[in-house]
Amino acid sequence: MVTIHTSERIDYLPNRSLQIIQASDVFSFSMDAVLLAKFAYVPIQKGKIIDLCTGNGIIPFMLSTRSKASITGVEIQERLYDMAVRSNELNQLSSQIDFVQADIKSLPPEILGQEYDLVTCNPPYFEKKELSDRNVNIHFQIARHEIYCTLEDVIQVCSKLVRQKGKVALVHRPERLTDIFEQMRKYRIEPKRVQFVQPKANKEANIVLVEGIKDGKPGVKCLPTIIVYEDEKTYTKEFQAIYYG
Amino acid sequence: MVTIHTSERIDYLPNRSLQIIQASDVFSFSMDAVLLAKFAYVPIQKGKIIDLCTGNGIIPFMLSTRSKASITGVEIQERLYDMAVRSNELNQLSSQIDFVQADIKSLPPEILGQEYDLVTCNPPYFEKKELSDRNVNIHFQIARHEIYCTLEDVIQVCSKLVRQKGKVALVHRPERLTDIFEQMRKYRIEPKRVQFVQPKANKEANIVLVEGIKDGKPGVKCLPTIIVYEDEKTYTKEFQAIYYG
Repeated sequence: MVTIHTSERIDYLPNRSLQIIQASDVFSFSMDAVLLAKFAYVPIQKGKIIDLCTGNGIIPFMLSTRSKASITGVEIQERLYDMAVRSNELNQLSSQIDFVQADIKSLPPEILGQEYDLVTCNPPYFEKKELSDRNVNIHFQIARHEIYCTLEDVIQVCSKLVRQKGKVALVHRPERLTDIFEQMRKYRIEPKRVQFVQPKANKEANIVLVEGIKDGKPGVKCLPTIIVYEDEKTYTKEFQAIYYG
Repeated sequence: MVTIHTSERIDYLPNRSLQIIQASDVFSFSMDAVLLAKFAYVPIQKGKIIDLCTGNGIIPFMLSTRSKASITGVEIQERLYDMAVRSNELNQLSSQIDFVQADIKSLPPEILGQEYDLVTCNPPYFEKKELSDRNVNIHFQIARHEIYCTLEDVIQVCSKLVRQKGKVALVHRPERLTDIFEQMRKYRIEPKRVQFVQPKANKEANIVLVEGIKDGKPGVKCLPTIIVYEDEKTYTKEFQAIYYG
């Protein structure tokens, strides 16, 4: 039996395979997280995956449909962590997925002692100095702004957790691409695959997916750009295939 | 009167505004150079532009149709330099454009003493170690491989020549994007605009255009990806507008 609070609702994952508890006063899963879960290369049959800044657990749930690896989700916010744990029960995935409430900058020894095949993260996008909208509640601020962790923190921790030649996959704003590449190299994660997402064919990209390999060889592939909308209301066929597939 | 050698031919620029001398035993202008000349922001009414690794002068000629700035093209190979000079006479552009035969790593004082508003470069793409095709003649090898200058040499020289807040625009292979960003930051050229070119909608990008600003603020815009071919034979409308426009 799983408790659902009155402020909460149960949504489906885009491919309708699993359910996820969401609430309007905390950050709901975004297209960005779904795209990252589709973009990342995963170990199929076995191995270990960790998702940092996991929120309500969207990425672990999505990845569980593609991989039999054990998956850990780490979230700093009690409220979101608690939702993730209950969604996990709801989906009866506790044998594959576990959630840990922790600050990625001071992870418990049972996590730091592991080497992961894949580390994923959909981190806060905006620098702390951009924190202008003080009306937004603290749950949203933490999810969106670098309050508890900066891009450098995230990449440093990813590098610490990933095994030699393992993969790190991030989603971010294209605006930060230079910083992402710089920090990845600084922490020995060589960028290997990049994919941009544009809202429309004639619009600038607003999402970038980046995957690097620990101590990989230099040389990055730029995958075909994903265009989200055909026109005002219709998703492109390519996007539908990725998002709902 | 302009001398044209028997091995040479006179081609038009894609927009048919100007002519250019080409020959099959040296590197002819490529789509990459044309796209760079369209991509770069130019000072319109006055100012100074320099194009490094100019080859037969395609970029200066293209830029002259968009700007009244004075334009210098630098080429190390005598044969290509000589073709560029004669194309310049052919187009009667000697009052706006001049060509200099020089190694960008030891530029003459009359160039090093200037500060340019815009520096463009379509450098050799391949590292020296990738030099496998020994059958190709030396003119092609120099144009394609980092024999006389590496990516770092190019960016270092660009940074030396560009004025404070001036622009540096490059075209390269996406594979080298991490190196490009790294070297740009190293030499205080902050990446500000990036545009990828894909041969088809479902193919990986094979060209990247990058523009940086000397001592610019961090933050890079990713412009809509250019798709070249609609199908096997037909250019997309977007590409046609850019290429022939």
